[in-house]
Amino acid sequence: MSRTAVLLLDCPDAKGIVASVSTFLYMHGANILGSDQHQDNQAGLFFMRVEFDLAEFTLDATNFAFEFQPIAGRYQMKWRLEDTASRARVALFVSRHQHCLVDLLHRHQTGELSGEIALIISNHPDARSLAEFYRVPFHHVPVDGTRKLAAEAEQIRLLDENAIQLIVLARYMQVLSPEFVARYPLRIINVHHSFLPAFSGARPYYAAFERGVKLIGATSHYVTDELDAGPIIEQNVARISHRDQVEQLIANGRDLEKAVLSRAVRWHLEHRILFYGNKTVVFD
Amino acid sequence: MSRTAVLLLDCPDAKGIVASVSTFLYMHGANILGSDQHQDNQAGLFFMRVEFDLAEFTLDATNFAFEFQPIAGRYQMKWRLEDTASRARVALFVSRHQHCLVDLLHRHQTGELSGEIALIISNHPDARSLAEFYRVPFHHVPVDGTRKLAAEAEQIRLLDENAIQLIVLARYMQVLSPEFVARYPLRIINVHHSFLPAFSGARPYYAAFERGVKLIGATSHYVTDELDAGPIIEQNVARISHRDQVEQLIANGRDLEKAVLSRAVRWHLEHRILFYGNKTVVFD
Amino acid sequence: MSRTAVLLLDCPDAKGIVASVSTFLYMHGANILGSDQHQDNQAGLFFMRVEFDLAEFTLDATNFAFEFQPIAGRYQMKWRLEDTASRARVALFVSRHQHCLVDLLHRHQTGELSGEIALIISNHPDARSLAEFYRVPFHHVPVDGTRKLAAEAEQIRLLDENAIQLIVLARYMQVLSPEFVARYPLRIINVHHSFLPAFSGARPYYAAFERGVKLIGATSHYVTDELDAGPIIEQNVARISHRDQVEQLIANGRDLEKAVLSRAVRWHLEHRILFYGNKTVVFD
Amino acid sequence: MSRTAVLLLDCPDAKGIVASVSTFLYMHGANILGSDQHQDNQAGLFFMRVEFDLAEFTLDATNFAFEFQPIAGRYQMKWRLEDTASRARVALFVSRHQHCLVDLLHRHQTGELSGEIALIISNHPDARSLAEFYRVPFHHVPVDGTRKLAAEAEQIRLLDENAIQLIVLARYMQVLSPEFVARYPLRIINVHHSFLPAFSGARPYYAAFERGVKLIGATSHYVTDELDAGPIIEQNVARISHRDQVEQLIANGRDLEKAVLSRAVRWHLEHRILFYGNKTVVFD
Repeated sequence: MSRTAVLLLDCPDAKGIVASVSTFLYMHGANILGSDQHQDNQAGLFFMRVEFDLAEFTLDATNFAFEFQPIAGRYQMKWRLEDTASRARVALFVSRHQHCLVDLLHRHQTGELSGEIALIISNHPDARSLAEFYRVPFHHVPVDGTRKLAAEAEQIRLLDENAIQLIVLARYMQVLSPEFVARYPLRIINVHHSFLPAFSGARPYYAAFERGVKLIGATSHYVTDELDAGPIIEQNVARISHRDQVEQLIANGRDLEKAVLSRAVRWHLEHRILFYGNKTVVFD
Repeated sequence: MSRTAVLLLDCPDAKGIVASVSTFLYMHGANILGSDQHQDNQAGLFFMRVEFDLAEFTLDATNFAFEFQPIAGRYQMKWRLEDTASRARVALFVSRHQHCLVDLLHRHQTGELSGEIALIISNHPDARSLAEFYRVPFHHVPVDGTRKLAAEAEQIRLLDENAIQLIVLARYMQVLSPEFVARYPLRIINVHHSFLPAFSGARPYYAAFERGVKLIGATSHYVTDELDAGPIIEQNVARISHRDQVEQLIANGRDLEKAVLSRAVRWHLEHRILFYGNKTVVFD
Repeated sequence: MSRTAVLLLDCPDAKGIVASVSTFLYMHGANILGSDQHQDNQAGLFFMRVEFDLAEFTLDATNFAFEFQPIAGRYQMKWRLEDTASRARVALFVSRHQHCLVDLLHRHQTGELSGEIALIISNHPDARSLAEFYRVPFHHVPVDGTRKLAAEAEQIRLLDENAIQLIVLARYMQVLSPEFVARYPLRIINVHHSFLPAFSGARPYYAAFERGVKLIGATSHYVTDELDAGPIIEQNVARISHRDQVEQLIANGRDLEKAVLSRAVRWHLEHRILFYGNKTVVFD
Repeated sequence: MSRTAVLLLDCPDAKGIVASVSTFLYMHGANILGSDQHQDNQAGLFFMRVEFDLAEFTLDATNFAFEFQPIAGRYQMKWRLEDTASRARVALFVSRHQHCLVDLLHRHQTGELSGEIALIISNHPDARSLAEFYRVPFHHVPVDGTRKLAAEAEQIRLLDENAIQLIVLARYMQVLSPEFVARYPLRIINVHHSFLPAFSGARPYYAAFERGVKLIGATSHYVTDELDAGPIIEQNVARISHRDQVEQLIANGRDLEKAVLSRAVRWHLEHRILFYGNKTVVFD
């Protein structure tokens, strides 16, 4: 398999965008492997993802930016070009519950996730042996009331040292400070154990049980300043009944959490996600 | 097929309930066709539904109450006995959107719903010809700001005249007054076009679109004083994507609404629903 | 809303297709409203659907064919251009069970289906009053062992007279002759009440019950010579349990049948379906 | 939490069964924690599962059999009493794909599965380190054309030595001999990567891709003499589209396989499964 690249772009909708971009790629020898686009006609926005083979492509990254500039400028595009050979460096944050961690590490091992899991950070020591089994460096960074800032400083140091590009909160139960979040805009993916916006905040399975809903859910989303309110990437639900006590909701919910978080991470790493407003476009 | 009855009961959990009830039924010749029970061990509550053939049953309704009283008293049971031959009289309320109405009328015609649709009340005249096609009396009761009370008075007169036992709000877009609701406790079923508690209130599909959720839903529930907060009977969801504009959400949602509302009506009419707290036990 | 057109095409995959087509459309003033494409890299095939506004488009249908010919020829395209203002004429075939018929007629009435339901043909008289209510001409064409050919001849005469472009078998329980099928290639949509290829043939709910499956399904597909083996358009399933007897499977299945058939009809009418091998590409 | 027991029984349906059983349990001090029953009125069969607290229960296993005999005899019951404190000993069989193995081992570690995973047997050495990490004995038993019988003999020796009560084929790709299967009737659970009965046999994802289905599935079932035809325990499906190549079907299918296999194992270990004909009753 030869090397491929992904071009992601969005701009105000206008006539001729696809013609310009596809002609540009064709003229420079790109062999297109897949292309997807989306128009929000109400908002007047255009989104595009093109994956192409680099074998006969005549531009490198620098040349691409220079040559593509006229088109990007004309249509006021935000764009980025990703070399799929360059694997994003990922940090996993986890607290006590390890089901998402186990799930992500196994998917990583089997090649299902295209990034590089570079380190695991936890406020508990429990996951150390699992990390060692998968040969991923593990860092225990305790967080308690008085040393939250110190803990975040240590986390940031570790993230910087390891050139981390994506942070995955794999059931990490600490709320991150606005300063921390601001350092990684749209670079932190969380899993929340409810079908947001229902039951945001803490203990959603208990809240779902109390309210007597007939479905429980889980949501993966980007972390922003506002708790549980960032752009949603993926959601899923499972049917429950009066027979299920809270413990069963929690057990069933774990499977939902694994599913929605792993899909979100995969899509992010495969450069399938674009944004507008507080929403995502996922080119799956 | 001979006649059958349904015994529904709930009480604090205790030893010997099933033994007492099943022995009682056995001693009086009941041929049990199906039985379901539920224990909430945390809340210490017991729920039971028994359906039995009346062919060799030796008690009529009056005798049943008399003979069953010692058991009911000992365990502090709330109970009721329903003769399934006695079809509940149902009123359908509808506004402009007729998809749930069409759906319920056709299911009624094919025998899927065990009640009797006795009349249709609407604040618009649009559904008259449909009602006539299915030979259900139709009453146009306009509701506007100044005459809401008068409208409800007229509705109540119609419901009383027709001895209505269940009111189904089949996309009826008017909020009922607390006085109206209080007359029909746990006798009014509504369909809300979101997966409650998310997006309660008006225009849920627009709210869902704005929030960028990946699933839309619908919820059938009993109407209580608090808007959209009564006991949930059934919910379902459907996957959407960035491709779906609000109009598509609304169209997809109609199918969810039909499904959850018709199931709730069927379960109610088949005496499958019990309550505790603000929740339902549905013996499906 | 101004008029729009849909261009559908497929061809062997090659460099430059999107560039050529999109540049062509741009040069002739098309305002693209939505575009979707698919590449099967293994089979080396390319599929594309473009919907565009005709307001400033400079070609009519005849000119389009002439001007587009060089591109179509170079890439060996199969293509067609559909004017969305031209509503396809549809015939509904039905036997005794009317749930799909009711569903399609109501969706048609509310504008959810973009075609014109021109007539209903049934081997039973039962649906006549429903057809009259929706003001669709109804034709009772009895089919029995000895007069099957005569019946088909009469059906064909009716279809020809009414210039029918799409036949929908809305639970029509007669097997069509190969000659009949050959007259309407990929123009007959059927609903089969199982998740094909499981339980093909007759009485699938009984077969599902016997086998003890935990999900039942329904499938909409194009009719070909081989029974229940044509290209699948849409499928869905619902969970069942040991509690559900065959009658309940049949009742639950009706909802699946309505859903998968109506979606298939809608997609066909909106020109969203392409073919390869025995499979469909559905640009939803 | 005190000790509990599960009573499972089935018999021809008759009046008085529930009264007899529940009175029997009540008279001997059982505190019932949950009870579920099922009647197949068409087949005339009755099924029951009762879980009860042993704290004040006055019978031990031997006494129970003696005292319960009159009831069991009168109604021709098949019955068994399971002490939930006695954890079933489980063997996991695996070939190259480890996703189900990882999943089951982690669920076992977190206490989600109530049995004891006593050993892992594989025809490949790959899973050894994983087994060691979870401290489960691992046995590499190569199987090739000429030594299949020898391999099975070795497997049987290991199973006997370890007093194994349940064999789970966690993506074990060898077909077991009828003699092997006969030793463990309804004691071998397999996962098949299609929604049986569709695509039975080898390479189901390829077959599903070829047929162009819109849903893929997975099935957990008991192994019987006839390949892929034993009683189905659980099934699930996931939606796919033309965008998904076979590799993506395989990846999505892994999640289905994990889900349906782990649920089947859990239900078996919790004594929730009864049989009739070739079907299961699952009291979930």
